[in-house]
Amino acid sequence: MINVELSNIWSCVSLPQLLGAEKDLYDAHLHLCNHQPIGNDYLGWLALPDAITAKTIHAVRSSADEIRAAGDTLVVIGAGGAYLGAKAGTQLLGRQNRMQRGTRILFAGDNFSSGSWLALCDQLGGCDFSLMLVSTGDADMAPAVASRALRWMMERRYGSEAKTRIYVSAPQESFMAVMAKEEGYTFLPMPQQLGGAFSALTSAALVPLAAAGIDPLAVFEGAAEAYSTYDLRAFENPVWMYAGARHVLCSEARRTTELLGTFEPDFAAFGDWWQQSVFFHTCQQGAGLIPIHVSIPAAINAIDRAISSAQYPVFETLLRVPLPAGQKVNVEMDWKDYDSLGYLSGRTLADVEQASFEGMLQTHAAADVPVVVLESDPLNAAQLGELFYFFELTNAICACASGIDPFEPQNRQPSRAYTEQLLGKPAGQDA
Amino acid sequence: MINVELSNIWSCVSLPQLLGAEKDLYDAHLHLCNHQPIGNDYLGWLALPDAITAKTIHAVRSSADEIRAAGDTLVVIGAGGAYLGAKAGTQLLGRQNRMQRGTRILFAGDNFSSGSWLALCDQLGGCDFSLMLVSTGDADMAPAVASRALRWMMERRYGSEAKTRIYVSAPQESFMAVMAKEEGYTFLPMPQQLGGAFSALTSAALVPLAAAGIDPLAVFEGAAEAYSTYDLRAFENPVWMYAGARHVLCSEARRTTELLGTFEPDFAAFGDWWQQSVFFHTCQQGAGLIPIHVSIPAAINAIDRAISSAQYPVFETLLRVPLPAGQKVNVEMDWKDYDSLGYLSGRTLADVEQASFEGMLQTHAAADVPVVVLESDPLNAAQLGELFYFFELTNAICACASGIDPFEPQNRQPSRAYTEQLLGKPAGQDA
Repeated sequence: MINVELSNIWSCVSLPQLLGAEKDLYDAHLHLCNHQPIGNDYLGWLALPDAITAKTIHAVRSSADEIRAAGDTLVVIGAGGAYLGAKAGTQLLGRQNRMQRGTRILFAGDNFSSGSWLALCDQLGGCDFSLMLVSTGDADMAPAVASRALRWMMERRYGSEAKTRIYVSAPQESFMAVMAKEEGYTFLPMPQQLGGAFSALTSAALVPLAAAGIDPLAVFEGAAEAYSTYDLRAFENPVWMYAGARHVLCSEARRTTELLGTFEPDFAAFGDWWQQSVFFHTCQQGAGLIPIHVSIPAAINAIDRAISSAQYPVFETLLRVPLPAGQKVNVEMDWKDYDSLGYLSGRTLADVEQASFEGMLQTHAAADVPVVVLESDPLNAAQLGELFYFFELTNAICACASGIDPFEPQNRQPSRAYTEQLLGKPAGQDA
Repeated sequence: MINVELSNIWSCVSLPQLLGAEKDLYDAHLHLCNHQPIGNDYLGWLALPDAITAKTIHAVRSSADEIRAAGDTLVVIGAGGAYLGAKAGTQLLGRQNRMQRGTRILFAGDNFSSGSWLALCDQLGGCDFSLMLVSTGDADMAPAVASRALRWMMERRYGSEAKTRIYVSAPQESFMAVMAKEEGYTFLPMPQQLGGAFSALTSAALVPLAAAGIDPLAVFEGAAEAYSTYDLRAFENPVWMYAGARHVLCSEARRTTELLGTFEPDFAAFGDWWQQSVFFHTCQQGAGLIPIHVSIPAAINAIDRAISSAQYPVFETLLRVPLPAGQKVNVEMDWKDYDSLGYLSGRTLADVEQASFEGMLQTHAAADVPVVVLESDPLNAAQLGELFYFFELTNAICACASGIDPFEPQNRQPSRAYTEQLLGKPAGQDA
């Protein structure tokens, strides 16, 4: 359960304003639930954690087992939520597993950089690897180009056995499904989602996580519990608290930029996932918040400057996720005390971190900057599932509450259409 | 020379508006130059590239040589511009050198994470390493705590020889200078800068770069040439073009958020440096732009959504920096053409990348989103120096033009004062 603490937002919005958002939130939540048909072939993301089948879990686990048996590296190629979700999950939970000799997970296909490609080839020299291709539908150009190159590399290296090392997660109706079938790749169907809804909780993200040693069932169980907890249509629901605060901060107080502060360097990829998910699902027609992810304490000094005047249309969301209790690390003694921090001796890093968080919170709140604090249980696979679901549902409700459809069947992205034209795509051809 | 292309901003601002900023820019530039006394002990950052001495270059090079001779790893501990600049530079230029077996550069001290600390210990097991401590003045808490721990680790591992492996870059008057002198560490003085001005072009950043195999003299020469080129007080000066565009987009068109798009994954750390430098030096009293760094093409789909409505107070700056011409990589053939991208065959990754950039530029400009394009020469050490200087000078001029002093002798950061109080800092004691 994620605890949402709103005591530091009242300099900008009032309790009646927040409560006044109730109808918007209710309608938004209802709209979401009514527009997400649930069935075997057509699971919506909303109830996905609840509707996941044993067959899916089995497929994820056995793919991960095969990947681990086939080598020490998995290359994930993709774009969008599932890809970024896999990156976030492996960064957050992979470290402890890497130390126990889990599979190395590499990511590719989010750029057209020749240098990155050559560096990847270098990393793959002399090791046995498998390939996971992820797509929520259309052929995005960057992952498709990487997929061509890596499939070709595998064929040269493994010959006819290459196909046993390639895994595809995509919707049933996509070109990727056709490719998997014709080439004999392992296919893990992704729910048929209208235009790229949230996909961090699909097999596309779970196979890499499982290969890195993270139990996919635990991730799903966390998400399933979140699904039932957060379905409540009232302000006791943490998602309503967070979504309501964002909604009124944005629409009433015109705080149109959200700074998400996280406190562990390993949250970098999660921050990317969050930032792109907010942009993609909630920013349309001028509605929605502009998202910025920052790492605390690295960015405190920089933000302090800006925040101290309280004149920017910004609010902060501080995401507190304790990492699994590991070894305690003490601040070292220094008899000469050059840095005058002698008063820290006897403290642990965790103590200092907590004080740094509180210092920032109190200072910014005192400067009339609204601060939302989200506190979760210690991080593990289940908590990761809950975190994904919590932010997905919040984003969807916020979007609907401001009159945006977060899952509008997206047209081909405009930049991409123009790019295809520049590259001489034959007219009338459709991916 | 960095080329500034403004042809896609005129949907939001007019040429007379831009030209009307001339007096503000002139005054800002003059103010900067007049308030930066130059002398041996007190170099300002502004003329630093021009005033650097052979002694400094020699000290940087011989430190780097010692570091390379002493082991295969250098740990850099710090915070702020010099630290982030070193990170940016090694990420951008380090790859080719790593392949030629350059020193591995690790970074620490920007967090209180026990997990990161244990991971660092793991990385340092079984290898010989040196330590570089960086500070622009005050003892920031996170780097100071990391410094205590690593100095202690070195003493246990190397005994009395530890001190020959420790390098300190800080101002003459700081506690770090005292520590270096008393302990016998190698000391590289940093210019005595009022309250943390720009420091990406000091020995603090250049020693790690040099250890990674990047010539410090070339970086300085690039910056020195930039210093003379960009001193021009007229709109022929690219810095004036960029600073002027930002100034009028922000103050006249109320486009208060700047999205900096970069096109290579290796620009991630540079993006961090830029984002923190904009926050820290230009965001005060409601003036200045809120900075967001995004990686293109990874974020195109997400931003496309938001941009298409042109209703956000945002403009884009696209930074085009060709990487050194390396091996050309072709898009692979695929006879079955599942992804319908067959029309790309015969193209290189660089072709596709260029089209992706142009597609995005034209699409966003057509949607009336102002886009500034910055184009530099191919990246090398000199170009890196110029990039740092270009953004530093632009930020400083933008800040002064909106009535902000970017180098105001900063008081102890407010969050930090509160944190110290929570941790029981003795009253009256000053670091």
